[in-house]
Amino acid sequence: MLSTIKLTIEYDGTNFKGWQIQKKGERTVQGEIKKALKTIFKKDINIIGSGRTDSGVHALGQVAHFKTSSLKSLEEIKSALNANLDHDISILEAKKVPATFHAQFSVKSKTYRYTILNRNVRCSINQPFCLHHPHTLNLRLMRQEAKSLIGRKNFKSFQSSNGTLKSPKTSIRTIKAIEIKKRGDFITIDLKANGFLYKMVRNIVGTLLEIGSGKKPKGTIKAVLSKKNRIFAGSAAKARGLALVFVQY
Amino acid sequence: MLSTIKLTIEYDGTNFKGWQIQKKGERTVQGEIKKALKTIFKKDINIIGSGRTDSGVHALGQVAHFKTSSLKSLEEIKSALNANLDHDISILEAKKVPATFHAQFSVKSKTYRYTILNRNVRCSINQPFCLHHPHTLNLRLMRQEAKSLIGRKNFKSFQSSNGTLKSPKTSIRTIKAIEIKKRGDFITIDLKANGFLYKMVRNIVGTLLEIGSGKKPKGTIKAVLSKKNRIFAGSAAKARGLALVFVQY
Repeated sequence: MLSTIKLTIEYDGTNFKGWQIQKKGERTVQGEIKKALKTIFKKDINIIGSGRTDSGVHALGQVAHFKTSSLKSLEEIKSALNANLDHDISILEAKKVPATFHAQFSVKSKTYRYTILNRNVRCSINQPFCLHHPHTLNLRLMRQEAKSLIGRKNFKSFQSSNGTLKSPKTSIRTIKAIEIKKRGDFITIDLKANGFLYKMVRNIVGTLLEIGSGKKPKGTIKAVLSKKNRIFAGSAAKARGLALVFVQY
Repeated sequence: MLSTIKLTIEYDGTNFKGWQIQKKGERTVQGEIKKALKTIFKKDINIIGSGRTDSGVHALGQVAHFKTSSLKSLEEIKSALNANLDHDISILEAKKVPATFHAQFSVKSKTYRYTILNRNVRCSINQPFCLHHPHTLNLRLMRQEAKSLIGRKNFKSFQSSNGTLKSPKTSIRTIKAIEIKKRGDFITIDLKANGFLYKMVRNIVGTLLEIGSGKKPKGTIKAVLSKKNRIFAGSAAKARGLALVFVQY
């Protein structure tokens, strides 16, 4: 009998060309897990993720699923995968789920986090997880502007084009929450939505940072949203400091 | 006129053979800063740290001083140093201090922090800053045992020998505070003392982890202290996850 196994995965995205298997055989998270599954089960197994993450983007809780008729226990599968993976990918959990579970299509929401070091001097510690922003940020204004992003909206203005991907049918998404927190010199921005368009997180955070730095005025988010055109938003924030934190089903 | 400049320094210790300049010319933090000072001031300048950190140990607030007759502003010195240093060392502050200030001899206390990932699965995120401990820890017992370390005591049992260093005259030190905190799967152990013997932090934390894991019984710390002999303490914790957080003057 075929079982459906759900994996929860942590990775440091630094040395990966993102999640998705690439034609050129570059190192990707999906590719590495597929290789490990082949070693363990002695056959090709398809592994489906909740969605892509870009080159350099990390995950604390990426989710994927695969199907197997093997009788290995979940603990054995988890241990064998970790033993066959390099240390920059870890399988946190292997869980049996109903056959109807689909890592991509069953997603209810995803939460991404940007971690920003907001001080004059660059990061020396944990550099891949830290976006350096040297200018003072008006967090009150950023939080106020972020409110205009909450809800079911057309996020066309925050969607980048990607030549290699088919455009999704709609640019409408629902942002459920945005939380901006400060702790010492670190600022985290958490975004939770039912789904994200290509580079949507990076474009939103880039725009919020420009607003917080005084480069764009109050009211920018509302104005940009209404234009439905990418050229009105700010520059995308770098991938550095971005992590997929949680996928809800 | 000669000015004394105090530097506050952050570094990721991963790619250094510790703080101290080595005879073999290996990459050290002191060595890199000395090179940068030579580039900036066009002469050899002696730089004195608050003390050594071992290979792989990080710093969020190491302190050092040097003397200069240059008229460059503090902001210029800081910027020029950062521009001449690789990104794994950052100068957080350059400050003018009285001529009597000495980074090593004026120290009032130092605080070290161990960061431990306490879960079944290894670290994939921020590996150099994370000591993996897979076994359940009895934090209540660890905190209770840690209390026996507080105060002015002979820490001979937690002092490793180092063939290349002269032994200090005394093994008496004063531990001012030990704080053990849990946040999600992360446990931090902060130790504050007027000074630390060679590998004292690593030997203490290694012993506390053995107590917390049930490998050593309640009362171990008191018993080990009274022996004044290194062989009675637990194994040293690895350097991974250890950082010099703060030096007080």
